[in-house]
Amino acid sequence: MIITVVGLGVIGGSYVQALKGLGHEVYGVDNDTLTLQQAKAEGYIVEGYRDGHNIVAKSDMTIICLYPSLVLDFIASHSFKKGSIVTDVVGIKSYFLEKALTIIDESVEYVSGHPMAGREKKGYAYASKEVFKNANYIVIEHQQNKKEAIEFMCQFVSQLGFKSVKIMSPYAHDEIISFTSQLPHMIAVALMNSDDQKYDTGKYIGDSFRDLTRIANINADLWSELFLNNKDYLLASMERFEEQFDCLKHALKGNDEESLKRMFQESSLRREKLEK
Amino acid sequence: MIITVVGLGVIGGSYVQALKGLGHEVYGVDNDTLTLQQAKAEGYIVEGYRDGHNIVAKSDMTIICLYPSLVLDFIASHSFKKGSIVTDVVGIKSYFLEKALTIIDESVEYVSGHPMAGREKKGYAYASKEVFKNANYIVIEHQQNKKEAIEFMCQFVSQLGFKSVKIMSPYAHDEIISFTSQLPHMIAVALMNSDDQKYDTGKYIGDSFRDLTRIANINADLWSELFLNNKDYLLASMERFEEQFDCLKHALKGNDEESLKRMFQESSLRREKLEK
Repeated sequence: MIITVVGLGVIGGSYVQALKGLGHEVYGVDNDTLTLQQAKAEGYIVEGYRDGHNIVAKSDMTIICLYPSLVLDFIASHSFKKGSIVTDVVGIKSYFLEKALTIIDESVEYVSGHPMAGREKKGYAYASKEVFKNANYIVIEHQQNKKEAIEFMCQFVSQLGFKSVKIMSPYAHDEIISFTSQLPHMIAVALMNSDDQKYDTGKYIGDSFRDLTRIANINADLWSELFLNNKDYLLASMERFEEQFDCLKHALKGNDEESLKRMFQESSLRREKLEK
Repeated sequence: MIITVVGLGVIGGSYVQALKGLGHEVYGVDNDTLTLQQAKAEGYIVEGYRDGHNIVAKSDMTIICLYPSLVLDFIASHSFKKGSIVTDVVGIKSYFLEKALTIIDESVEYVSGHPMAGREKKGYAYASKEVFKNANYIVIEHQQNKKEAIEFMCQFVSQLGFKSVKIMSPYAHDEIISFTSQLPHMIAVALMNSDDQKYDTGKYIGDSFRDLTRIANINADLWSELFLNNKDYLLASMERFEEQFDCLKHALKGNDEESLKRMFQESSLRREKLEK
């Protein structure tokens, strides 16, 4: 199969690396000539292009690994091979697919996807097929999708190293993602920003603070777009979190040791079961 | 120097391992005979005892790695060598030292400490000198401490692999720890418990959710004790966090993209500077 990956950042770069050895003919499209040269020199792509028009017209699959708004621009300005699969890695789906499906050619099978993997650093230098290893992948099924295309996509990504591949509607995706991905980012930002900076904080932290704030280093443009376009689900998740946080605060204030312990036992149990 | 480590769990076990090769004569005290046998077989301790009375009476330093209330029991029921140093690893200090200093013999130099290191799993099997590597250590200085003893303690722990060693009063320690350690644990518990379990959550998480909930698997007895005895500082930290979380919610509700971005840029900047 001829596969073109558009945007060789952490995710796109990890795609070309994970695709190696699976028998495909892989091409890359990126703004950065050096990145293309490096991916070619490393043997991950046959050729790299700054302009994707010719190659996506010949590709059986195009994997667009760009920011949401840039994916829409790319779809609108390129003609894909008839019957080919086009996919993306955008972090929320309802508002995005509403737009994407109005501009993509109907002869193309648009199968949106979400590899739940990434790094807090940007760029091809941080790409690796290890990024996908044991990660979760969500295939988004919408009304215009053929059943075979969805099945094909599930098999395709399974070969890239993902541990779990699930099929979901755009709405279900956005609901669960508001809790598992967006809420943790909001929490990390709030935690980092609530430091009153009275002490030299970095000298008094352990791994718990490090882990909880790692994603406070956040791409402001990308995440504002993702949050604002998933506002209702995200607000609901934030409010559920606030309720629980308030229960803890209430128990602490009232010296209610029993309630505290019950909540800690509950969270321990849930955490242990999380990936079983 | 003759050093006895009491309690060979993750922290105590890591102490005996980090002490190896530094020229001391190291002994272990633990309830569990198999743990003592293993530590001896691995060459980390000269001998292990279930009863610590004889060995602590001969030790130049006793490192007590037990739960807070058990440390108090141990101090009350043992006679330490005159002029020797006794230390602990208890996670909060003001209420604890108030009690500890009333029961310890005045001829002993009690230097409380806090290695900001650990694992979410319990027991000697998870101990390793790597636990201390690049971690922060806080030496607690109280009114009865000799200056030389504090200086000695700083040098002593520096040799164990800690990256930073800071001296603080019990109150300053409890204030910063309420933010850097206790608040993250409260957040993790609240996040884990706010899952409405509509979906099979584990299949839809990435590293952000994993990282933010790792410490939601929490020792209920230990942490209730730590939280309730540091209530005022912890409540203040929780309220500062709530204010920031509320700012984010407010901006999201009002579609205030500019404010969201400003908060994300602030948290990114702070996170980047955190350990520089």
